[in-house]
Amino acid sequence: MLPPAQFSRLQVVLVATRNPLNLGAAARAMSNFGFLHLRVVNPYEVAFREARSAMGGSGVLAQAQEYKSVAEAVADCALVVGTSAGRHRELHHPLRRLETGARLIRQQLRTQPVALLFGSEKVGLSNHDLSHCHWLLRIPTQETHASMNLGQAVAVCLYELVRGAGVTRSPDKAEPAVAGDLERITQTLLEALRSSGYLGADAGALTEEKIRRLVRRWQLPKSDAEVWLGMLRQMLWRMKSEN
Amino acid sequence: MLPPAQFSRLQVVLVATRNPLNLGAAARAMSNFGFLHLRVVNPYEVAFREARSAMGGSGVLAQAQEYKSVAEAVADCALVVGTSAGRHRELHHPLRRLETGARLIRQQLRTQPVALLFGSEKVGLSNHDLSHCHWLLRIPTQETHASMNLGQAVAVCLYELVRGAGVTRSPDKAEPAVAGDLERITQTLLEALRSSGYLGADAGALTEEKIRRLVRRWQLPKSDAEVWLGMLRQMLWRMKSEN
Repeated sequence: MLPPAQFSRLQVVLVATRNPLNLGAAARAMSNFGFLHLRVVNPYEVAFREARSAMGGSGVLAQAQEYKSVAEAVADCALVVGTSAGRHRELHHPLRRLETGARLIRQQLRTQPVALLFGSEKVGLSNHDLSHCHWLLRIPTQETHASMNLGQAVAVCLYELVRGAGVTRSPDKAEPAVAGDLERITQTLLEALRSSGYLGADAGALTEEKIRRLVRRWQLPKSDAEVWLGMLRQMLWRMKSEN
Repeated sequence: MLPPAQFSRLQVVLVATRNPLNLGAAARAMSNFGFLHLRVVNPYEVAFREARSAMGGSGVLAQAQEYKSVAEAVADCALVVGTSAGRHRELHHPLRRLETGARLIRQQLRTQPVALLFGSEKVGLSNHDLSHCHWLLRIPTQETHASMNLGQAVAVCLYELVRGAGVTRSPDKAEPAVAGDLERITQTLLEALRSSGYLGADAGALTEEKIRRLVRRWQLPKSDAEVWLGMLRQMLWRMKSEN
């Protein structure tokens, strides 16, 4: 088993969940497997209230944190993983099978917070949500029935995280930058690209998502984040001061 | 993956299920993981009818077989396994952790039908039900929150059965950029940093090495190298053209 301190670094993030039963089921699976921290992004408000009141005043759901955006919900996490039924291959995110991905998540949890994102029941995670993710996790379901119920998907992922815990491997990687660092770099880079003419004034959300993913693929060590941000800011300042 | 012929030897047996949503969720998880045969023993009749009609006329639930007793439901099975949150130890059934038990079930499925029993939401399997079982399976939940939601328990058990069955693993790392790519990026970045004023004219070899190491720590995928180079070149061009 992972020691509780490491379990507690996992942030289960439910994005735009509609059904109170699924909120309740996700929270129950978290309790079953010893995970504490639930974050909800723009839940259907009625569902969130209903699910909370159904569970009484204690436990995972009562302590769930509510956020307005994925960016805020994952800002303190060093690794952000999305779950997918595998329909988003056009995004060229690395898509890892659950057992492989869970091993990587456990490694990260030894030292850093990790966010595990689950999308809404109907459409899963949007392209914008996915642009915040470092890579995607896929439960090995049948191609013809790929899409799982939300509560069941949460249960299976958390089971796999617990299942392989107890195998200890020494960390050999530099501490990675957290999502908030990467987002600050992304925003500065976007501004610099606009100032430079690389991006036109008409570049929209799609371009922004591409750049966000580009930065996430970078695997930036935390200790380097400030340096890159400083360099970009200086270039940006220079380009603006010449106008 | 288990070949379909072996999957199809598993009989998922739901005993005295009360909630139509749980019947539906169990059937959905079976479809997700490629299992076909659902047997229900004394379900709450209304629930069974409701769940069936909600699913339409096809699929696992539509083809589910109904039985009056556990004895009839498992009569053709060579191995009968009960699921338990571990509260039935007084029966002295062997209690196997899911991953160990799943291995034994897969062995049996190569040649013989196996029944996997799940009890009702409130009380699980009764002592009478358990008396039909060869041994019990326990999902490794927390002692303080041992009892899982029925649909989630089915999903986790079936996932474990599929998980260990002949895994094909996809490559999960992007091809890294080669040294030549990184050096082109380094040189362009150095020039941009000088143009921006981030590096003074007197910055020497030591600074250059620091920037070179910074870029090497980046772990850039090969497919992204040209994009970064293009962005840096554009910013550099912009800074120079303004002088």
